[in-house]
Amino acid sequence: MTADFTEHLTAQAARIEQALNALLVPDALEGEVRRADRLLAAMRYAALGGGKRLRPVLVLETARLFGRSDDGVAMAGAALECVHCYSLVHDDLPAMDDDNLRRGRPTAHKAFDEATAILAGDGLLTLAFDAIAQEAVHPDARVRLALSRDLARAAGLGGMAGGQMLDLESEHRDRTEAEIRTLQAMKTGALLRYACRAGVILADASDEDVARMTRFGEVIGLAFQLADDLLDVEASPDAMGKATGKDAEAGKATLVGLLGREATRAELNTLLSEAQAMLAPFGAKAERLSALARFVVERKN
Amino acid sequence: MTADFTEHLTAQAARIEQALNALLVPDALEGEVRRADRLLAAMRYAALGGGKRLRPVLVLETARLFGRSDDGVAMAGAALECVHCYSLVHDDLPAMDDDNLRRGRPTAHKAFDEATAILAGDGLLTLAFDAIAQEAVHPDARVRLALSRDLARAAGLGGMAGGQMLDLESEHRDRTEAEIRTLQAMKTGALLRYACRAGVILADASDEDVARMTRFGEVIGLAFQLADDLLDVEASPDAMGKATGKDAEAGKATLVGLLGREATRAELNTLLSEAQAMLAPFGAKAERLSALARFVVERKN
Repeated sequence: MTADFTEHLTAQAARIEQALNALLVPDALEGEVRRADRLLAAMRYAALGGGKRLRPVLVLETARLFGRSDDGVAMAGAALECVHCYSLVHDDLPAMDDDNLRRGRPTAHKAFDEATAILAGDGLLTLAFDAIAQEAVHPDARVRLALSRDLARAAGLGGMAGGQMLDLESEHRDRTEAEIRTLQAMKTGALLRYACRAGVILADASDEDVARMTRFGEVIGLAFQLADDLLDVEASPDAMGKATGKDAEAGKATLVGLLGREATRAELNTLLSEAQAMLAPFGAKAERLSALARFVVERKN
Repeated sequence: MTADFTEHLTAQAARIEQALNALLVPDALEGEVRRADRLLAAMRYAALGGGKRLRPVLVLETARLFGRSDDGVAMAGAALECVHCYSLVHDDLPAMDDDNLRRGRPTAHKAFDEATAILAGDGLLTLAFDAIAQEAVHPDARVRLALSRDLARAAGLGGMAGGQMLDLESEHRDRTEAEIRTLQAMKTGALLRYACRAGVILADASDEDVARMTRFGEVIGLAFQLADDLLDVEASPDAMGKATGKDAEAGKATLVGLLGREATRAELNTLLSEAQAMLAPFGAKAERLSALARFVVERKN
């Protein structure tokens, strides 16, 4: 990564942090009774102060590629990040992956307690659907509603939550390569796909561009997961800010386990080339999105 | 309850069951990858086959009062019921209220396991925002989006989830009457208020009618909670299909505990009169909604 790109990434993440911060205020909104202090604190703990903000930054970058870069896009990104953060809080629970460390800090149920963590996850998931409905996101209510519904589908039974269910079922059970690919397209792929798709929709691009960037999001999603599997095998807990080697420990089949590290790396490089080829028609305008794709593949944590 | 009203209530509940059943099918929708079997089974277990369906039936009855009674209303009711059912699944978890019995059956985490129950709750909450976005709910996307956002506010940090947080914090802690009333307006009141409000909005009624029926929903919400507190003290676990005496056991202050049974009953009757007075201008058209208000106050489980 160039220093310029790192700086840009930090600035974009800060925009998302700002949007999240604006959502997580103590004052009740119209239609609310009162915001519960402890729940707000736990939601802030889980959503603020860290993370690469990869998903919402993808929303920002894809929207920018099609000519939109105001703060309404950051709010849509923040909605998506709420969903991502809720999933981390729930996935870390003792009944799920039972993790104590996340982004180098105690997980939410360690910093608070299990009940509060469950509610904080619920609250963040719910807040996402308030955020995506905000007028700043897009002037046309039909677009906001479509994005809201798509978010529900990417996050739910047929997407992320369903993928986490399949992943939990994978412990000490053989999975075929096709099964693992489906599981990963759901568990991590669905939100990354949504990120790229949402950005283009927010910028009122053509159906053809929406389809193209949705496919780009699928490629990025797959690359992200392969890189993640490699990091789980190779990186240290210190570098990752969370436990590593968890998949092997839980007896979970991964693509790295099935294909080997070398073939995984080769596929990663193919995916990166594919992603960059999809951006080629946009020329220099797509430079940052291209750098982001490279970052997904080459990241060290 | 007259036999006619009971029959009507059963028929309306069946419409909601049908809408929920249509949502909880194995086939993936556009934008989904694949629906995870075990998660779908747990969501069906939690959402189907039981319950009074009070909230969605309130949606149906308020919409009918203002002239709308097609199945799009039942779909909006089903969205609300998804939120209610998710909250029951999560509230029953060991880290929360730790209940083994719900509607006379094992709770979701007993029938499946904790991880699956957490995900089933997450999945139902998410599904609500897919359901409310369906075109059948209302032809105008702006109306559907407003209902979606209102649902998020009723369910989240400033509503139901926040209320559950405050309720958990109430264990072995003194609460003033005002605090308990706020907590209850959030934990149970917010969804009942939403139910009555949503029905009127779905029927394109005037702002004045929306405001009136929102207030009606608040009265119903308070009455429901007072009746619930009384039942927790007086009813048997057999009649309720769940554990009773839980509040006293957990050292939670309730209005019944503070005001005494007699004063609680008196307030309940006042609320019922108030609710019925609000319906008086509608004459015989509001008969069923009036009977429903009476049912909330006089129910035995």
